[in-house]
Amino acid sequence: MNVAAYMTELGQQARAAAREVARSSTDVRNHALSATAEALDGARAELAQANQKDLENGRANGLDAAMLDRLELTPARIDTMIEGLKQVATLPDPVGEITDMNYRPSGIQVGKMRVPLGVIGIIYESRPNVTVEAASLCLKSGNATILRGGSEAIHSNQAVAACIAQGLAAAGLPETAVQVVETTDRDAVGELITMPQYVDVIVPRGGKGLIERISRDAKVPVIKHLDGVCHVYIDSHADPEKAIKVAVNAKTHRYGTCNTMETLLVDQEIAEDILTLLAAEFDAKGVELRGCERTLKILPGIVAATEDDWHEEYLAPILAVRVVDGLSGAIDHINRYSSQHTESIITENYTRARRFLTEVDSSSVMVNASTRFADGFEYGLGAEIGISTDKIHARGPVGLHGLTSQKYVVFGDGHVRA
Amino acid sequence: MNVAAYMTELGQQARAAAREVARSSTDVRNHALSATAEALDGARAELAQANQKDLENGRANGLDAAMLDRLELTPARIDTMIEGLKQVATLPDPVGEITDMNYRPSGIQVGKMRVPLGVIGIIYESRPNVTVEAASLCLKSGNATILRGGSEAIHSNQAVAACIAQGLAAAGLPETAVQVVETTDRDAVGELITMPQYVDVIVPRGGKGLIERISRDAKVPVIKHLDGVCHVYIDSHADPEKAIKVAVNAKTHRYGTCNTMETLLVDQEIAEDILTLLAAEFDAKGVELRGCERTLKILPGIVAATEDDWHEEYLAPILAVRVVDGLSGAIDHINRYSSQHTESIITENYTRARRFLTEVDSSSVMVNASTRFADGFEYGLGAEIGISTDKIHARGPVGLHGLTSQKYVVFGDGHVRA
Repeated sequence: MNVAAYMTELGQQARAAAREVARSSTDVRNHALSATAEALDGARAELAQANQKDLENGRANGLDAAMLDRLELTPARIDTMIEGLKQVATLPDPVGEITDMNYRPSGIQVGKMRVPLGVIGIIYESRPNVTVEAASLCLKSGNATILRGGSEAIHSNQAVAACIAQGLAAAGLPETAVQVVETTDRDAVGELITMPQYVDVIVPRGGKGLIERISRDAKVPVIKHLDGVCHVYIDSHADPEKAIKVAVNAKTHRYGTCNTMETLLVDQEIAEDILTLLAAEFDAKGVELRGCERTLKILPGIVAATEDDWHEEYLAPILAVRVVDGLSGAIDHINRYSSQHTESIITENYTRARRFLTEVDSSSVMVNASTRFADGFEYGLGAEIGISTDKIHARGPVGLHGLTSQKYVVFGDGHVRA
Repeated sequence: MNVAAYMTELGQQARAAAREVARSSTDVRNHALSATAEALDGARAELAQANQKDLENGRANGLDAAMLDRLELTPARIDTMIEGLKQVATLPDPVGEITDMNYRPSGIQVGKMRVPLGVIGIIYESRPNVTVEAASLCLKSGNATILRGGSEAIHSNQAVAACIAQGLAAAGLPETAVQVVETTDRDAVGELITMPQYVDVIVPRGGKGLIERISRDAKVPVIKHLDGVCHVYIDSHADPEKAIKVAVNAKTHRYGTCNTMETLLVDQEIAEDILTLLAAEFDAKGVELRGCERTLKILPGIVAATEDDWHEEYLAPILAVRVVDGLSGAIDHINRYSSQHTESIITENYTRARRFLTEVDSSSVMVNASTRFADGFEYGLGAEIGISTDKIHARGPVGLHGLTSQKYVVFGDGHVRA
């Protein structure tokens, strides 16, 4: 197979389909989403069979248990895909929204209209449910999509793609509006990320290694989510009860998520009291603490943190702990080590809260709230294609708006420049 | 000189300065702008002397008259720089604006705060006044800047930079908040566009060749303006008076600007009448017409257009003219040949106007108005760093908002995820 020629063909088809999707009505796109849900429901046997093939190959190729779990399309996961499609169909259509329409001194009226980006390339690893999730958000926002899933999920992804194609056809949209790459050749990714003439933006979903590689080589803009080294800073003016509640939730609500706290910063003025209380809580939950020198003086039993710990996204029941000199010390630490994902201050002090909000340069900055709230659903976006740690275009949780752009619209009555 | 080490030093200094600028008050940044204006006013002799050196070198190196003109810092141009600084100081500060603040079902309050991008790299060609224009917009929006001007303007740019440094110092801001690259070594550009750790976005200002080169090699996001192949489509339902007024203005108001009409499309139903009238107008203004076959039948005296003409940004008194089959024909032509900058339809028909607005995918889409309005000042942005032909981040005229990003702010009262 000539991968370059194949990807060019997909690109051209996507570009042509994008025009049709962009001008389709809200109702047509919603119809495609609900018809895809129906198709998935009707294809449970085929989905299970295709998934079985991937699971068998995966076991034969020695995939570990976690990988096999991500790969599995259980009936419950198919239910979740179907539910997701129905929910995306109920979201307001972002396309065509006109804002900021005003008359100018020249007499023209100028406003902004929200429009699809065009063609979105999604690159992801083993989870086949991402195929439906990503395709539904791109379609709802008026875009065409090219999806490149992990080779270990190829049969499952093809089966899901067949359902999406049925949904598109039922709504009278071109089946090329959502295309799943059929080859497992790795060169397909290299082609996809270097076709700016056919692809407007790439959204990679997966581990940091995948995303760094794609960002490095892409010739197309990438909406990327690198790591989440999130901090909670407990200020000397914190309410201890809130501090403990938030710190425990931020670390232990879920260990494997990007908005989980990885480093706890505590003001030296209250470090002894609060760390003694927190150590008992974390001990009860089985969280390993790794402390700076000053932390070790208060909690002599714990592991000593090294420089690497301040950079680490553990995604595990491990927490780095540092005693800092007040708010300035906390901000210095965050500016140096944070991945600019999410940071929270616990304080009752108005001026310090305000300073933290202004001076911490992360995609989410919080006061007296758990970092675990940094999430598209919690923020009310209705859906989430990912969390961007970039500053350009989309920052933080990315919903439908992040998959759109705006154009200026100008109304005149024969107006000319003087 | 070790260019890589030098650029790394500038990058590190810019990154550190960016933090200080980001947390500075509106008043401090405005003070720096007005103090720079005063410094320029007090340094007219030094500016003239430095500029004289560049002009002499330019003449010795055989620069053409247009280049020498762009290079010249006349007293009037210094006045314009001073006026520009004062005007930017009066614009509302975009930094810190909080929007969309709402309570969520969980009880947290979520909103968005506008924040600076960080460090902006500006790459431009011969005009030394760009140094002040670009630096002032970046500073106003809370960013640090690294400016790399054309080597032929190096002495003028250094003299301007000295004034900016005085202005920053007067306001108590670090002089490294605006740095002009001191070496004319071409490798400096290569370094600047590949330092994502120090530079958040690149704004190139110059010819298409420069911008394509930078976009191709950059490892930092680029807000780019390529070409403006702008169209006016005269529909069969156009008011002929408005059509002629707008078409003449869009072409002849200024020939060298990116929002000038380069191709005129005319519905075949009214082509004979309108083209006969327009040909007389354009003839009187000395505009050369290049027509498609159907145009040549109506205006047999004009030059025949080739395929290249439909792609051409003339920036000159030349206009390509094509007779098309109604609105669909016009949209097909635009989708194929437009640079997605600005297109205008002339029509009294509501449905056609609405369809044109929806289906034409350009950064500005107009009804019954001259393409020449596509401009940051005309749109009310107050200032313009450029016009983006990208879809990601900023599209169309880019003002202060385009130099900022948004972060989420979350207020809680000890809230945790359930």
